[in-house]
Amino acid sequence: MGDTATTHHTKSANNGANDNQIGFKSRVSVIGSGSWGSVAAKLVAFNTLNLSSFHVEDANMLVFVTPHQFIDNICKSLVGKVRSDAEAISLIKGMEVKIEGPCLISTYISEQLGINCSVLMGANLANEIAEEKFSEATVGYRNNREIAEQWVQLFTTPYFMVTPVQDVEGVELCGTLKNVVAIAAGFVDGLDMGNNTKAAIIRFGLREMREFCKLLFSSVKDDTFFESCGVADVITTCFGGRNRKVAEAFARNGGKRSFDELEAEMLQGQKLQGVTTVREVYEVLRHRGLLELFPLFATVHEICSGCLPPSAIVIYSEKKNIFPV
Amino acid sequence: MGDTATTHHTKSANNGANDNQIGFKSRVSVIGSGSWGSVAAKLVAFNTLNLSSFHVEDANMLVFVTPHQFIDNICKSLVGKVRSDAEAISLIKGMEVKIEGPCLISTYISEQLGINCSVLMGANLANEIAEEKFSEATVGYRNNREIAEQWVQLFTTPYFMVTPVQDVEGVELCGTLKNVVAIAAGFVDGLDMGNNTKAAIIRFGLREMREFCKLLFSSVKDDTFFESCGVADVITTCFGGRNRKVAEAFARNGGKRSFDELEAEMLQGQKLQGVTTVREVYEVLRHRGLLELFPLFATVHEICSGCLPPSAIVIYSEKKNIFPV
Repeated sequence: MGDTATTHHTKSANNGANDNQIGFKSRVSVIGSGSWGSVAAKLVAFNTLNLSSFHVEDANMLVFVTPHQFIDNICKSLVGKVRSDAEAISLIKGMEVKIEGPCLISTYISEQLGINCSVLMGANLANEIAEEKFSEATVGYRNNREIAEQWVQLFTTPYFMVTPVQDVEGVELCGTLKNVVAIAAGFVDGLDMGNNTKAAIIRFGLREMREFCKLLFSSVKDDTFFESCGVADVITTCFGGRNRKVAEAFARNGGKRSFDELEAEMLQGQKLQGVTTVREVYEVLRHRGLLELFPLFATVHEICSGCLPPSAIVIYSEKKNIFPV
Repeated sequence: MGDTATTHHTKSANNGANDNQIGFKSRVSVIGSGSWGSVAAKLVAFNTLNLSSFHVEDANMLVFVTPHQFIDNICKSLVGKVRSDAEAISLIKGMEVKIEGPCLISTYISEQLGINCSVLMGANLANEIAEEKFSEATVGYRNNREIAEQWVQLFTTPYFMVTPVQDVEGVELCGTLKNVVAIAAGFVDGLDMGNNTKAAIIRFGLREMREFCKLLFSSVKDDTFFESCGVADVITTCFGGRNRKVAEAFARNGGKRSFDELEAEMLQGQKLQGVTTVREVYEVLRHRGLLELFPLFATVHEICSGCLPPSAIVIYSEKKNIFPV
């Protein structure tokens, strides 16, 4: 593995002594890093008795929870080393939306390793879960309800509630698109527009998320947006989180300081996922001639790229939204 | 009219000179009081040219926007004085939920005056609309789309966006039930549970709102909860508003000071709608043997009435919600 691989750590848990809880003899490996990686490992450890040394070859449940830019190298390093009957789950937020179609991380893992991959998303800021404050999440699965139930059991603790939904694409896309809505919400905060406006913008965003997901995958279900990965994650991200925060600063500066500059100052050079995602979303919509149906997404990108002032978030989103999508 | 009637004021607008905007010659009367009444009159006035003296007999569009406890006397005073072809719209939040069924204010107006009644609800804190900050609302109508479009045109301004939905019951019930969710959110705030928990509780609340509405009226549409009256109004009410505020104080005091006491101190003796509504909702659910399917609503009432401590909001809502409604 390259440079990136050195930053991830792995933990595994053999819950053979705890069959009733997971329902079958399994070895779980958490392939992760960062605060979310640590918290995920803690949740999994609660449901398994023995933490032992790590051998990917033995694991039949693989939990991926790395920053999204590391997943390429990690997958490449695992090719040929994973049991063919293993199941994976991705907790990684931030797939790429390419013009030829979205590149879901779950699909990428699945294709690279030749195994099925579910996803876990939701309103779960890592630091609050670390404090064992009540949180929840959504597991998106493809076909096999039993596998979904196993993931639910693996992650559920007295303070962490997990709900399965048969909609892997909808659940995974929510985890990325919410960052675009958070940028819009941050603009509203920076413009001091008030609660009504912010709620309206969040609602427009949630609707556009739903329509965009359905545009890409006709299988996506409306009900997914009532799950933790949908409305709840949008709320936490629009009231906390760094996408909202930097967007607020951008609007307070009247768009005169670029996102690049603010990211360098406020995030020590890390990039905002929302800015990247909305550029990709914009390209997809432009390519398909559908920009007019997604006024909020389009306007967020036009503001981020300096083509429109921050105040356009209301004027444009409203004008185009007078007749619902 | 009795004492209450003296507190309401009326405004009317003859928009004969402005036919194109409303689409037909109409006389609009706003029967209202309070800050929301004033703001509603301002919105209507924007779309009509001449404010003139008020004669109910002449009006064919009646806008009701009074505190809900006044509507009985107002309707009684209007019996026999309203044109039979008049159309009404209620902006009043706070119908009663009786065991024999909910008593919607739109239905009450309709039955008392023998005219059709639509509703207008949404994420619209009056003071922010008064400042002309962008807000939106949902018009719930029964059958006639043309009437809905007329109400939309009457209320729409550059800073106020209105969307019609054919679901009068769903829209009206949202305007009342959101206050119950706001009390739950206030408890979470008072317990310092954090963003994840609050988002989870808001989501549980939104789902129970939807299920409760569908239980009472099978015609209620899922999509109504994606409108301003649904998710957006729930967000504004759970982050602002007095139901949330008093519930937060209740939780901070560990439930040792009653809602009666806090209302007297914080609201100058006014009563919280959410506390009344959730008691009514609880009775309906108990009567139908459905309390277990609505753990959040049930727990909010049990906390408000002193049967459970504020901390129960998470423990109970979560336990019962492990398997989705």
